[in-house]
Amino acid sequence: MDANRFLSTFHSLTNIGWTEEGVMRLALNTYDVKVRQELVRILSTINANVNLDDAGNIIGSLKGKSDETIAIGSHMDSVPYGGKYDGFYGVMAGLEVLRSVREKGKLPNHTLSLIDFTNEEGARFQPSLLGSGLTTGVFNKDYVYSRKDNDNITFERALMDSGFMGDEKNRLVYNKPKYYVELHIEQGPILEEEGYQIGIPMGIVGLSVYEFTFIGQASQAGPTPMNRRKDALVGASKFITSVRDYARSKDNLRATVGIVNVKPNVYNAIPREVRLTLDIRSTEKSEIDKAASELINMAKKIADEEKLEIRYNHLWTANPVGFSDEVINAIQKACEELNMRYKFMYSWAGHDAQYMTRISRVGMIFIPSHLGISHAKEEFSSDEDMLNGLRVLEKVIELLDR
Amino acid sequence: MDANRFLSTFHSLTNIGWTEEGVMRLALNTYDVKVRQELVRILSTINANVNLDDAGNIIGSLKGKSDETIAIGSHMDSVPYGGKYDGFYGVMAGLEVLRSVREKGKLPNHTLSLIDFTNEEGARFQPSLLGSGLTTGVFNKDYVYSRKDNDNITFERALMDSGFMGDEKNRLVYNKPKYYVELHIEQGPILEEEGYQIGIPMGIVGLSVYEFTFIGQASQAGPTPMNRRKDALVGASKFITSVRDYARSKDNLRATVGIVNVKPNVYNAIPREVRLTLDIRSTEKSEIDKAASELINMAKKIADEEKLEIRYNHLWTANPVGFSDEVINAIQKACEELNMRYKFMYSWAGHDAQYMTRISRVGMIFIPSHLGISHAKEEFSSDEDMLNGLRVLEKVIELLDR
Repeated sequence: MDANRFLSTFHSLTNIGWTEEGVMRLALNTYDVKVRQELVRILSTINANVNLDDAGNIIGSLKGKSDETIAIGSHMDSVPYGGKYDGFYGVMAGLEVLRSVREKGKLPNHTLSLIDFTNEEGARFQPSLLGSGLTTGVFNKDYVYSRKDNDNITFERALMDSGFMGDEKNRLVYNKPKYYVELHIEQGPILEEEGYQIGIPMGIVGLSVYEFTFIGQASQAGPTPMNRRKDALVGASKFITSVRDYARSKDNLRATVGIVNVKPNVYNAIPREVRLTLDIRSTEKSEIDKAASELINMAKKIADEEKLEIRYNHLWTANPVGFSDEVINAIQKACEELNMRYKFMYSWAGHDAQYMTRISRVGMIFIPSHLGISHAKEEFSSDEDMLNGLRVLEKVIELLDR
Repeated sequence: MDANRFLSTFHSLTNIGWTEEGVMRLALNTYDVKVRQELVRILSTINANVNLDDAGNIIGSLKGKSDETIAIGSHMDSVPYGGKYDGFYGVMAGLEVLRSVREKGKLPNHTLSLIDFTNEEGARFQPSLLGSGLTTGVFNKDYVYSRKDNDNITFERALMDSGFMGDEKNRLVYNKPKYYVELHIEQGPILEEEGYQIGIPMGIVGLSVYEFTFIGQASQAGPTPMNRRKDALVGASKFITSVRDYARSKDNLRATVGIVNVKPNVYNAIPREVRLTLDIRSTEKSEIDKAASELINMAKKIADEEKLEIRYNHLWTANPVGFSDEVINAIQKACEELNMRYKFMYSWAGHDAQYMTRISRVGMIFIPSHLGISHAKEEFSSDEDMLNGLRVLEKVIELLDR
């Protein structure tokens, strides 16, 4: 591999969509479309065969001796105010692997594919993993195409406008890769704090996302005495604090309220409605279900105390998944051959790898995230750590290709 | 006065801007412009002299025997998802007074003016009372014109586009009305609960508005362990609950967090920044100042506990004002002559009357608000209550005109 080529491609392309507040490369927006065009352009310089499926996933392949495929993938979309590394690093590293295989000129045993999945983040279109969900058969087309962003633009519309609408026959579920490997930043503080260079996830924790709406009564802030109020924001605030305190009291649980929308959101009106999301994660499905049920009861109790109505609904669940022992072993072997300090762990974030377990033997490779920060402009992994991950990825592909 | 003419004008015009979620007649938006055009059209049918000042305030006058003026006023803009009565009632009642004076054909001693003040609510352009503030000399033109709405449109731009840009020489501060009377809904539950038909405010309580920003660290919701988080939303939530509990423990204080904006506002990212507004009111300035200082300390303590940064700044203050004894006495006398059950009280909401005390002898008349609800689609006052208020207003003008 060519370290300088990788670093210069990575740093120049991930600046597309960078702003003072972070990366704004939301799925299929102007910035995302621009980096996609760049990716396709570079793939064409190495004569890769580029296919698009009907989720807009980009699949660039170098034909090997056999049609059996080893796929490398991740995503280039970001959350709003996101970081430069999340997802993007994995696609750029895969691109370098393909470039250097082409450069060596030696035909691999397997066909090698690089995949950029559409709308991994779920920031523009909810839920997340829409591209990998459609291509692996988890979601159906009607569901995926009807997802809407905040401006009421459907996924289908955005995909058509982007120029990346492809063909249903190119879905991975009809062309299953034998292996799928995803290289990613940890997005947590463990590897850095404990001094490891590489993390080897055993799988991905489960996730359930709920939406809660607290409904009170708007009124003018001045003339309504404090003891007559039905303030939806006070109820929501008590709930948000309770969620954090509850999750902090459990070992194997994380719970986050990430979205809060207040109506009417005027300084001198008592809030009448607050909608919020609750994200619950654990390695054990049973613990997620227990937490959801206990937090719903807490919300009801708070609504009662504050004379509010409460509504909630379950948005989606991703069950915990385990990765392939064969791929995990290959990653471990690669780390040992390269003298990398590695640690087995879990991924607490969702990844396209999750749905790829339905159709392929899957593994992931993590590199340290400085201070554990992700989904923020401060997200950072050093060039050295990125090159370590790239070396491990290249070695894993070599081992799986034997 | 003509009760049916008043009611039919009121109900048909306040429907301009009505939606299923409430009135959306924000200052100088399409709906506000449309009702303004209707108001000017009706004023022209009674040959009123219509002037605009450089805040877009509409001043329609019927010349009397003298140039000394009795003004009646309020506003036609609404908060988002607002009610049909707030402000609009006062303008429509004043219009009926002018119509019936013109109809009687008897020249009053004083010139009678009707004023529609621009951007009373402060919902589109903050702060509130921009129109009355400029016309009475509280605010200067640069300040008022540079206020921006959420789409970054300045007040000046919106005013020019509306067609209601008028002349600085028409400001009320250069043409001071001797008296100013404003008829308004109570926006609180007291009159209805205690069985009064009319409220006579002695003055308007004071108000201070602050903005607080809690700043933490965004990160991916999954991989960041609960005890390493700097969650700006948890800090803000603890503060919001504390504000309510604090105000509830005081007799003569109201405090409201009305606006909350979260960044990045994504379900799977720990919130890094929450901006919120705090509205503090009391009849006593000293109590507002004390509450502000104690709540700022609470915010600092919470930020400390949650490892957050905190910023706050004072947005604006309106000191408590007292109304003119002469006008209050006239309102009391009118109520007695009309056999209305009336109550002396305070206005806990700001009104254009507040700034009019700088240049005129001012009084207000309140009618009951059903359930005390205002700034919401459920805002309601009966036709009977509205007619009672209109009768008192007409009588007060007659008494002041003697």
